[in-house]
Amino acid sequence: MNHNIDMSNINVRTDLAIEEIDASEKNKFIKESIYNNIKVSSVEVNDKNKDKFMKKIGTYITIEFTDATDYNNSKNVEEIFIKELKKILKTYKINDDNTCLVIGLGNDKSTPDSLGPLAINDIIVTNHYFELGINVEDGFRSVAAISPGTMGQTGIETFDIINAIVKEIKPDFVIVIDALKASSVDRVNKTIQITDAGINPGSGIGNNRKEISKEVLNIPVIAVGIPTVVDTITIVNDSINYMTSYFSYMKENIDNPKEKLKIIRTDIKKDNINIEDKQKLFGMIGSLSEDEIKKFISEVLVPIGYNMIVTPKDIDFIIKRLSCVISTGINNVLHKNVTNL
Amino acid sequence: MNHNIDMSNINVRTDLAIEEIDASEKNKFIKESIYNNIKVSSVEVNDKNKDKFMKKIGTYITIEFTDATDYNNSKNVEEIFIKELKKILKTYKINDDNTCLVIGLGNDKSTPDSLGPLAINDIIVTNHYFELGINVEDGFRSVAAISPGTMGQTGIETFDIINAIVKEIKPDFVIVIDALKASSVDRVNKTIQITDAGINPGSGIGNNRKEISKEVLNIPVIAVGIPTVVDTITIVNDSINYMTSYFSYMKENIDNPKEKLKIIRTDIKKDNINIEDKQKLFGMIGSLSEDEIKKFISEVLVPIGYNMIVTPKDIDFIIKRLSCVISTGINNVLHKNVTNL
Amino acid sequence: MNHNIDMSNINVRTDLAIEEIDASEKNKFIKESIYNNIKVSSVEVNDKNKDKFMKKIGTYITIEFTDATDYNNSKNVEEIFIKELKKILKTYKINDDNTCLVIGLGNDKSTPDSLGPLAINDIIVTNHYFELGINVEDGFRSVAAISPGTMGQTGIETFDIINAIVKEIKPDFVIVIDALKASSVDRVNKTIQITDAGINPGSGIGNNRKEISKEVLNIPVIAVGIPTVVDTITIVNDSINYMTSYFSYMKENIDNPKEKLKIIRTDIKKDNINIEDKQKLFGMIGSLSEDEIKKFISEVLVPIGYNMIVTPKDIDFIIKRLSCVISTGINNVLHKNVTNL
Amino acid sequence: MNHNIDMSNINVRTDLAIEEIDASEKNKFIKESIYNNIKVSSVEVNDKNKDKFMKKIGTYITIEFTDATDYNNSKNVEEIFIKELKKILKTYKINDDNTCLVIGLGNDKSTPDSLGPLAINDIIVTNHYFELGINVEDGFRSVAAISPGTMGQTGIETFDIINAIVKEIKPDFVIVIDALKASSVDRVNKTIQITDAGINPGSGIGNNRKEISKEVLNIPVIAVGIPTVVDTITIVNDSINYMTSYFSYMKENIDNPKEKLKIIRTDIKKDNINIEDKQKLFGMIGSLSEDEIKKFISEVLVPIGYNMIVTPKDIDFIIKRLSCVISTGINNVLHKNVTNL
Repeated sequence: MNHNIDMSNINVRTDLAIEEIDASEKNKFIKESIYNNIKVSSVEVNDKNKDKFMKKIGTYITIEFTDATDYNNSKNVEEIFIKELKKILKTYKINDDNTCLVIGLGNDKSTPDSLGPLAINDIIVTNHYFELGINVEDGFRSVAAISPGTMGQTGIETFDIINAIVKEIKPDFVIVIDALKASSVDRVNKTIQITDAGINPGSGIGNNRKEISKEVLNIPVIAVGIPTVVDTITIVNDSINYMTSYFSYMKENIDNPKEKLKIIRTDIKKDNINIEDKQKLFGMIGSLSEDEIKKFISEVLVPIGYNMIVTPKDIDFIIKRLSCVISTGINNVLHKNVTNL
Repeated sequence: MNHNIDMSNINVRTDLAIEEIDASEKNKFIKESIYNNIKVSSVEVNDKNKDKFMKKIGTYITIEFTDATDYNNSKNVEEIFIKELKKILKTYKINDDNTCLVIGLGNDKSTPDSLGPLAINDIIVTNHYFELGINVEDGFRSVAAISPGTMGQTGIETFDIINAIVKEIKPDFVIVIDALKASSVDRVNKTIQITDAGINPGSGIGNNRKEISKEVLNIPVIAVGIPTVVDTITIVNDSINYMTSYFSYMKENIDNPKEKLKIIRTDIKKDNINIEDKQKLFGMIGSLSEDEIKKFISEVLVPIGYNMIVTPKDIDFIIKRLSCVISTGINNVLHKNVTNL
Repeated sequence: MNHNIDMSNINVRTDLAIEEIDASEKNKFIKESIYNNIKVSSVEVNDKNKDKFMKKIGTYITIEFTDATDYNNSKNVEEIFIKELKKILKTYKINDDNTCLVIGLGNDKSTPDSLGPLAINDIIVTNHYFELGINVEDGFRSVAAISPGTMGQTGIETFDIINAIVKEIKPDFVIVIDALKASSVDRVNKTIQITDAGINPGSGIGNNRKEISKEVLNIPVIAVGIPTVVDTITIVNDSINYMTSYFSYMKENIDNPKEKLKIIRTDIKKDNINIEDKQKLFGMIGSLSEDEIKKFISEVLVPIGYNMIVTPKDIDFIIKRLSCVISTGINNVLHKNVTNL
Repeated sequence: MNHNIDMSNINVRTDLAIEEIDASEKNKFIKESIYNNIKVSSVEVNDKNKDKFMKKIGTYITIEFTDATDYNNSKNVEEIFIKELKKILKTYKINDDNTCLVIGLGNDKSTPDSLGPLAINDIIVTNHYFELGINVEDGFRSVAAISPGTMGQTGIETFDIINAIVKEIKPDFVIVIDALKASSVDRVNKTIQITDAGINPGSGIGNNRKEISKEVLNIPVIAVGIPTVVDTITIVNDSINYMTSYFSYMKENIDNPKEKLKIIRTDIKKDNINIEDKQKLFGMIGSLSEDEIKKFISEVLVPIGYNMIVTPKDIDFIIKRLSCVISTGINNVLHKNVTNL
């Protein structure tokens, strides 16, 4: 493979911290717990380990679930989301009187990018009542909410709009909602990430000065993200791993007729890949590391325009359910008196 | 009528300057011209006449047309809108290099209030290319566009959002688009008003400090408005006038059988009402002035919640066509190279 | 008034049976009951009284409420709707095994006309499972649902589409949902009518052969309608009555200073009008009967195009809530196992 | 590979006839021509070759283009679509008086599946004018249009709705519009297929009796389809071919420094794969045939739920443009007097 695959410097970015960790090191960095088949992982990125994660310093909480279009399941996810969001607010000593600005990033006209604007539609806003001296029931804090649109819609860098509004209305803290890109097919529409490390709207263009974060805005910034899209590079790499895992599994079980009946396909994971099997099944490609494979696919597909960023066919229905989980969750956390969990 | 109708101090506000002028004084204040059945009127409100108009000092241009859902007609309206908008920008010596922020007021989730947000969707934005140093074709100026939402959606006074963004991106001038309330059934969805006198978003609540105007923002502010709603008070008052006018007309023509065939109903106007006929037809009500009638209806209907603000049944189709006239017109005026009139 | 108001033969149609009854005769024909401020009225139109009602023979149930955008109130309305719909199905001996076709009339692209299509979106359909032999949980009957669109959208008479589908899938009974026109401003978006007398889609054009009814389709047809629009004629006529009633009320109370403080405006009703007061206040117009007034207004406004059909400004929000009441109600009635009232 | 990859009988269906042909045999079956970078191919499937294509007998015309969101390009595509649609209608001797029913399959609530319903919105319908005896301008034929929804929305098999309406209104011919699944990433949103071989709505479930075709409906049926989704199996298989092709290309050019500068990545095609290179690069996988690879991927991914069907991230914008090409094209072909190409 030596000379003919150029490991050029294409950055393979992912929006989820949890995706940056090698399976072998998982236990070292991640605290995991499971409730109702929903997995909650927590990673602390600090000065020591930040290079490993290629992520900013901060806490990254990941909630992984199966199918959010199932009503009962989505209610369980909501409950855990509320618990985890409360926890992270607590670390910033945010109390019931602190005012909040909720920001929904993304383009309401583009289904997979509309998570933020959709959730904002259902946030219970009260800031104007407080401002105008109108009496507000107990159990409701001052909350404002805005969907600033994308730079392509407004011609203005999204950060600039947010920064201007934060300076004007001076909230005590900010919650930002955004649709992310996954680096694993398993996580598309099946993961909520909560972090206090900030977020970079339209991260392709941005620079650090334009990031929505505590460092820049000088108030706590909690980002809530759900990966709704994935690129071809990821799909191909994941599929190679699934195929290898399946190959290993079948090799072991196929000649044992008794076992054949017991094959449970969902045992096939794409972690813990047997390198020899991968090499046997996929030749030169199989002998590359995951990162090398991704870079090679990227090198082939990006210049000819075939590294599509895609979203599942039924995204319209999923995004409605997910935005509802996020908005209901945030309403519950912000307003003590909201009880229609 | 003496004791039993209390002419209480209910303000009967209209959003259109042209509606504040008595028919008798029209020629004194209004310059009118007609092209392709489209009437353009221009009123200058100044220190001397401002009490008469109950309007702020400034120029008010009114474009009146019949049916904007007719494609050819809407194209004629577009052409005149472009001409008049150019004229008013010229008075502020705005040149091709001046940067513009276009603002669409209103709620995109409420059809009759969605004119602004709908028009913003189709504004050609370029400000980010200039900011990021990306080469922009000749004939395009720097334009940004934003739909700030309503206070009920965001919990923030709309003025505060706009003011913050204007301070941040420092445009040379502003164009604001909004849906208005008509004080005449004839004008609903059939009038465009262009003015340099500013606009008060959500005028029920606002105070002068919160108005979007040259005085407050320190840059020229051109407001473009279309009345899309009307209240019951106006509908009843207009109908009383139409009935009176019809009554007068019929009285004169009915006994002359030859004339009967020639009756052209559209001759029936609600201006130039014969007071005697009105009194005969409508008794005590007919003997009141228009303002008194409106105040009386208001006194009856407002407290019991029946002064509905309404919009025509087919508003969804009309608003799409009108927002297209406005956005195409603004694109043409802002960008010299946009030619798909 | 003699010669100059021609009581021409313009038909003043209303979609609600309850609106056709004189106040004086109400008790004779209408059974009323009230729960949680929601009034349920029931009228039986039969061979003897059908001329009085200008309605087809059948049962007309009317549920009148105040504000459907209030969540708790809408839930109360839902409960009563379910009870009344169950009752009317019972009279046709419809049992849990009978299959149903739910039809949503109207244009999904026109907000005030979208009640039917919006409700259809949320009907739980199961007919295909039964057809394909897929196992269906107990407590669900076979239900199909369709939004045939309007003749203006499809180029096909709506009846023809429905008739063809009924012949093809042969349901045991039909529920039709439609947005209606009110003949009283009080009822717009505040009334549900349930009837077994059938419905005429696009009633302006239709003839009896094209009506969706038991007589034509040979299966029970239950129509569920909500008036979402009202015309100017009705608004003016209702306002005249409100003004008269207010006038009478004030005359009696105004000279009694003690009483003045007690004036409860909501006591002002537009029924039981004092004819003398009406004549005094409204001159010749006041001396006409209600029907004559409506015909006169119609004569004046229709030819000049000012008898607008209008809908309240906030129709987008109301229609969503109302369609939800209807769909949840129908799901509950059709499927025994649906419990998320 | 022998024993451990079971080439089970999973059918790898594609909706496009052109995708079923081996590169080597292309010239034998396909007539190709190119205008303005738009490729038009025509395949005749007949009794002799139908097994090769796994397609029904009929003519399949494929229009391949690059980017439909470019306005000028989309106008060129429109022009060719009109030409080809006219040609196929001519073979059925359809004349200007023949009546047409246009059917838009798919779910208007699901963006990638909304091509049909979106196009139907813009079809000019006239059938009701002819039916009601209203005078219609010359140059317009009788056209009806319907979006029957999906079986999941209505609970009725889509074929049954269409069949019922065809029997009721008896059109002379039918045009059906549908979103398809591609078997090649290159074709997603970049191909229009026109065929007279009929179409199977919701082809997963259907049987031949339920297909919308000339054989079943007894009138000519022209189906217009655009692939808007693709599955993971296809993405992975295509990527393997792209990588192989890139590998071959680089091997030949990499050691020739002069050539390196000339590398034109778009020369890399996924047809004409060098089998030896594929085997070297992809090991056992590389030694399988395309069909075998697809079946293996399917075997791995389908049971664990990772054969996602996906659509590009920007589908909302693309589908609007494509539906406009289709509706404008059909309007032009059906109505001689429609000229706003």
